[in-house]
Amino acid sequence: MSFEIISTIRSHGGIQGVYRHQSSATGTPMVFSVFTPPQAVNGRKLPVLWFLSGLTCTHANVTEKGEFRRLAAELGLVIVCPDTSPRGDGVADDAGWDLGQGAGFYVDATEAPWAPHFRMWTYVTEELPALVTRHFPVDMDRQGITGHSMGGHGALTVALRHPGRFKSVSAFAPIVAPTQVPWGQKAFPTYLGSDKAAWLRHDAVALIEHGALVPEILVDQGTADGFLEGQLRPHLLEAACQKAGIKLTLRMQEGYDHSYYFISSFMDDHLRWHGERL
Amino acid sequence: MSFEIISTIRSHGGIQGVYRHQSSATGTPMVFSVFTPPQAVNGRKLPVLWFLSGLTCTHANVTEKGEFRRLAAELGLVIVCPDTSPRGDGVADDAGWDLGQGAGFYVDATEAPWAPHFRMWTYVTEELPALVTRHFPVDMDRQGITGHSMGGHGALTVALRHPGRFKSVSAFAPIVAPTQVPWGQKAFPTYLGSDKAAWLRHDAVALIEHGALVPEILVDQGTADGFLEGQLRPHLLEAACQKAGIKLTLRMQEGYDHSYYFISSFMDDHLRWHGERL
Repeated sequence: MSFEIISTIRSHGGIQGVYRHQSSATGTPMVFSVFTPPQAVNGRKLPVLWFLSGLTCTHANVTEKGEFRRLAAELGLVIVCPDTSPRGDGVADDAGWDLGQGAGFYVDATEAPWAPHFRMWTYVTEELPALVTRHFPVDMDRQGITGHSMGGHGALTVALRHPGRFKSVSAFAPIVAPTQVPWGQKAFPTYLGSDKAAWLRHDAVALIEHGALVPEILVDQGTADGFLEGQLRPHLLEAACQKAGIKLTLRMQEGYDHSYYFISSFMDDHLRWHGERL
Repeated sequence: MSFEIISTIRSHGGIQGVYRHQSSATGTPMVFSVFTPPQAVNGRKLPVLWFLSGLTCTHANVTEKGEFRRLAAELGLVIVCPDTSPRGDGVADDAGWDLGQGAGFYVDATEAPWAPHFRMWTYVTEELPALVTRHFPVDMDRQGITGHSMGGHGALTVALRHPGRFKSVSAFAPIVAPTQVPWGQKAFPTYLGSDKAAWLRHDAVALIEHGALVPEILVDQGTADGFLEGQLRPHLLEAACQKAGIKLTLRMQEGYDHSYYFISSFMDDHLRWHGERL
């Protein structure tokens, strides 16, 4: 497995790295970023927080605008930020920004022309964790996961389907029930075909309704988010969690939108949430 | 004077705005950003910190990557970030990234073809302060100024030539003696012609050697900055300040480069420096 350093830059006392490797899951080169905090000395292994990004994003958006390094350096958290899809000339794409490259939805596509490369589920749940374990000073018994929008969907579904893997789960403005909203209703048939059971395995609300559990979840959601009612609908998650006995902390943040100006405003709270549990 | 809101987004409890106005100084539309912290209520006027950006940048780089909002919101600082030059199809430009659009060097050009629009000195010292005074909740008796690289040069020279206007001055990896380094030796003759006296009025070290004073300056400089010895040479500033009795705090930051990963790492320290003096 090839593994290449694109850049390593000192920041907040740690190292913000960007790396590229040839992914066996996607069959493409994949780029991801890792922030390694200053506590990573003398072979010390540190807790790791995964950040899954949203539609149109690469690793770079949160890496540049997420404002996570100051507190991650203080708390001693490794922060891993994958890309949101395979990319490249030989990879299927769509003219829309909510499908194709930049919109992998953290599923393993089974339909043509997506199936050969759009295998982000395997990528973020198996391949990249194995690579991170091998190359970075991480204690994989202390993992947390978070994400934004489509990446919030990814974080919730990955956590719900890997009981015990993550000690902490949170999300920023997540898609909580993709099978009930337009983004998912466009992407899931496209990537997964007509088998609705396959869709439901990637729907956090449906997973909870069918018995998947995590102990607790932190969600921040801006009230001025233009996608709130149409695509995100956090109250569906609230209802499912209440019924299932999952302790959901859902914070409706007055006047905040869907951007990184929102994410960065509450990044500290999420880092502390994870830090306390890792 | 037209004044238009491009966007206002809630962040860290305040408002991150981006604005456009028709500049009489440059004869072009100019875009700038202002962060208004949450303390701006009930007509309260707040201290203001100017951030002048470096080569190739617009207002957007520091606005997105500077990581200043969290602490500015805590300290109650308004943060104003101008563009680095006039821009547009009718504006002179150069193929190099260190001249022309994105490289105004905070001077009023006197030479063709730059003179009609490249009037960034007047813009940042007169026109934009007047506009900010009119439209934002600022106490102009409590101003600080900082900047990065070419913008550090701007911050130092603007402060040195406006005694008493700024209660605090700092810079990230500034060009301190443009007449002694290639960037300035390319830009100053181009913009200002052959009159070396005009160049020296835009050279912080020369200004200090000729008697200009500020009480104290904070400068952070990365030791892994590729421009350190060729273009920045902070020890020239150190020598000039020592001779002039200016209290310079020059911090050489081990392993840091010239990027926003460096700037954001020390942004808190600079905000606190200004906050304590404003």
